[in-house]
Amino acid sequence: MSTMNLTLLTDFYELTMMQGYFKNNKTETVIFDAFYRTNPSGNGYAITAGLDQVIDYIKNLRFVTEDIAYLRSLSIFDEDFLAYLKDFRFSGDIYAIPEGTVVFPREPLIKVIAPIIEAQLVETAILTIINHQSLIATKAARVVYAAKGDGVMEFGLRRAQGPDAGIYGARAAVIGGCIGTSNVLAGQLFDVPVLGTHAHSWIMSFSDEYSAFQKYAKLYPDKCILLVDTYDTLKSGVPNAIKIFDEMKANHIPMPYYGIRMDSGDLAYLSKKARKMLDDAGYYDAVIAASSDLDEYLIDSLKTQRAAISSWGVGTNLITSKDCPAFGGVYKLAAIMNENQEFIPKIKLSENTEKITNPGNKTIYRIYEKDTGKIKADLISLVGESFSEDEDLMIFDPIETWKKTKLKAGTYTLREILEPVFKSGECIYKTPKVMEIRNYCAQELDTLWDETKRLINPHNVYVDLSDQLYQMKAELLDKMSLTE
Amino acid sequence: MSTMNLTLLTDFYELTMMQGYFKNNKTETVIFDAFYRTNPSGNGYAITAGLDQVIDYIKNLRFVTEDIAYLRSLSIFDEDFLAYLKDFRFSGDIYAIPEGTVVFPREPLIKVIAPIIEAQLVETAILTIINHQSLIATKAARVVYAAKGDGVMEFGLRRAQGPDAGIYGARAAVIGGCIGTSNVLAGQLFDVPVLGTHAHSWIMSFSDEYSAFQKYAKLYPDKCILLVDTYDTLKSGVPNAIKIFDEMKANHIPMPYYGIRMDSGDLAYLSKKARKMLDDAGYYDAVIAASSDLDEYLIDSLKTQRAAISSWGVGTNLITSKDCPAFGGVYKLAAIMNENQEFIPKIKLSENTEKITNPGNKTIYRIYEKDTGKIKADLISLVGESFSEDEDLMIFDPIETWKKTKLKAGTYTLREILEPVFKSGECIYKTPKVMEIRNYCAQELDTLWDETKRLINPHNVYVDLSDQLYQMKAELLDKMSLTE
Repeated sequence: MSTMNLTLLTDFYELTMMQGYFKNNKTETVIFDAFYRTNPSGNGYAITAGLDQVIDYIKNLRFVTEDIAYLRSLSIFDEDFLAYLKDFRFSGDIYAIPEGTVVFPREPLIKVIAPIIEAQLVETAILTIINHQSLIATKAARVVYAAKGDGVMEFGLRRAQGPDAGIYGARAAVIGGCIGTSNVLAGQLFDVPVLGTHAHSWIMSFSDEYSAFQKYAKLYPDKCILLVDTYDTLKSGVPNAIKIFDEMKANHIPMPYYGIRMDSGDLAYLSKKARKMLDDAGYYDAVIAASSDLDEYLIDSLKTQRAAISSWGVGTNLITSKDCPAFGGVYKLAAIMNENQEFIPKIKLSENTEKITNPGNKTIYRIYEKDTGKIKADLISLVGESFSEDEDLMIFDPIETWKKTKLKAGTYTLREILEPVFKSGECIYKTPKVMEIRNYCAQELDTLWDETKRLINPHNVYVDLSDQLYQMKAELLDKMSLTE
Repeated sequence: MSTMNLTLLTDFYELTMMQGYFKNNKTETVIFDAFYRTNPSGNGYAITAGLDQVIDYIKNLRFVTEDIAYLRSLSIFDEDFLAYLKDFRFSGDIYAIPEGTVVFPREPLIKVIAPIIEAQLVETAILTIINHQSLIATKAARVVYAAKGDGVMEFGLRRAQGPDAGIYGARAAVIGGCIGTSNVLAGQLFDVPVLGTHAHSWIMSFSDEYSAFQKYAKLYPDKCILLVDTYDTLKSGVPNAIKIFDEMKANHIPMPYYGIRMDSGDLAYLSKKARKMLDDAGYYDAVIAASSDLDEYLIDSLKTQRAAISSWGVGTNLITSKDCPAFGGVYKLAAIMNENQEFIPKIKLSENTEKITNPGNKTIYRIYEKDTGKIKADLISLVGESFSEDEDLMIFDPIETWKKTKLKAGTYTLREILEPVFKSGECIYKTPKVMEIRNYCAQELDTLWDETKRLINPHNVYVDLSDQLYQMKAELLDKMSLTE
């Protein structure tokens, strides 16, 4: 993705609409919000990710000669519009919540302020990128939560939905808390740890399992994790592995990191049996790694069963977010600037209250409990509203408005979480390294109560509207009332 | 993907194993089969896709200077091995079932015959590519089947798992039967139709729905599909659309393709009401298109309810294969050549009979009923076995071996479906254009009985083993018997 021209990575209707705006001289500046409505996998939050790839995409937006020629070949675009595209650059502003941040439904993860023709084009790619990486980062956070401090490795490349899904999925998985990935290209691109040892084919390429282990141990004594389930885990694999460890010990070869990996069978039963065999042989510090169709529920169950596993390789279910493979982010018009340079708020109606959009030029304040540092609620407000930590703050649920909470002055702190990324087409944001984003994400997760992090039926964090925003929305709804 | 160097798109363990083979002077030629075990989404077959991208990948395999430098930085690879990688080229043979072919579980979709160090490297990328595209092509075939001849458009880019998932997913969706995609880049890369009109933001950017429709119709009278659900489908959208059609008619503007699109609400109810309104106004040929979280089951249900929809835009559920987002293809060692240039078959055991691999150098014959042209069964045999359509053929189920069928001479025809793609590292295969593959796929689907194509509980096509292959497998199993 880093070298491919992605300017045409857009839905065709963005281009037909662009020509429509162009032909109708619609040059007004608008605001679009990218947000989502439901946390994936029944989670209590999401982790936003993908901003760095959005930045690359915006920076590289250019309709090159072949793009123009291709669009001309479709016999629907006029030459004046194609000439305009030749010099097209993104000239607007973009605000975003930094990658690795804990986010909640209906919060603008990205806010685009630009001439409508530009803001329209970038819809599709922004959603593709943010939807994908936020999905996988969130899934990774769930899996890592289930592993209760054990290392989780991202092993899913072969089941990813194409190369990018593997590459950027690995990036997102590390942001969400994985300690590394099997994907070498992701390791190279993002400077994240790459992990892995050998497959069944290594074992099968030798005359017997013992020889295969021996050759492997000779070559990689420092990271000697032996795959024990090619023939029979307890009768062949583990005893052969112990023989190898005995030989290494006898030969005084240092074994800083060694152990076994299981890739099939009843992991609870096998890991406990293998642990006993290893312990009986004196290998108390031998690692037992597992990697067989794992997800957060299976890891949680294995933990409950006290499986003797301390390292987890998670593939298909993480890299595809199998139980919920789409994030569902949308990109909605929130305001149009009038001739007086004022933003006129816009709202999209729906028979479903939850789907009605929040109008206007908005920002988000995160409210923390001062004592604990935990998130109390988020407050979506209009840009320009000011709040003081030294005053009481009344917040209320935007749908069930009778649910009100008064936060006493001095008991809470505020942090604005949307940050400027592009200003008049120039990028003014520097993305941290992926491992830095990972650390930040871990801190972010610490701002959630455990009740919000649990895998099933989590407690939802309130996302409230400021009084001004709520009033503006109510007035717009009144005007456009949904009468039969 | 077409321009990015994907040589490092591999699991780290492929490289640690490669160094192991290199250090142990293991240069023997081996055979690996890429196959899958279960049809996705409970389907009765799969559609194979992605071969053209596998070909590109193999052709472009090169460890460039930065790759070598990166691998060196990991402090696990020795200089002699890194020097070997510098000149690495794929020198082997590859056989594959052409894209768009109907395939069944346990058939080698791709067979790699190469020195073990080369065959090992390419495992991950081959699986990533084939798993993804075969998954989406199969899902598309299901959705298109449900639409019973109506056009199905691939509209999922914004929910795809990253750019490649959108691009190659669109390619696979067209192979599986979609008439086109919203993805402009996929249109450009693969010369497939791109489709789309306008979004809610187009409507909201004008002072009212009627003006927005009018401007759109003026610009695109030839393909005038108006989105009617921004405010109220039946009270506002459809009446405004009819007003526009009336004006076009009054002004004698030709309307070769026109109608409405619905993106929300009860599509069965709304489409029937809208159909009546359009018919009452004399617009019998107005198209009603729908696009709201559709999948094969919802389309099937809408068809059963006689919804008045004749054009379907399918997004999230198709581009992610939402109910089954991974194909599950694996890559297993089948044989190793000995010093006498004979392939010694290899088998991977498992406590699950279905997971035991088929050993040896294999090919696949498809057996058709001569009368109907429908598939009778597939026969996996060893390369070199010969079969004659002029002789009776006894086939039997490889697991329930008492299930036997004798095919009488002259009543069946045979077609070998694995084709040579690379010979000694040279590509000898030319991929057809995507729209040609789509046509071929439609013919392939015609070789299935409807009972195999139905969405739920399809009839499974038998994939049998030749007598020789069965005997070889039985002998290997005997030798390695799974005794307690």
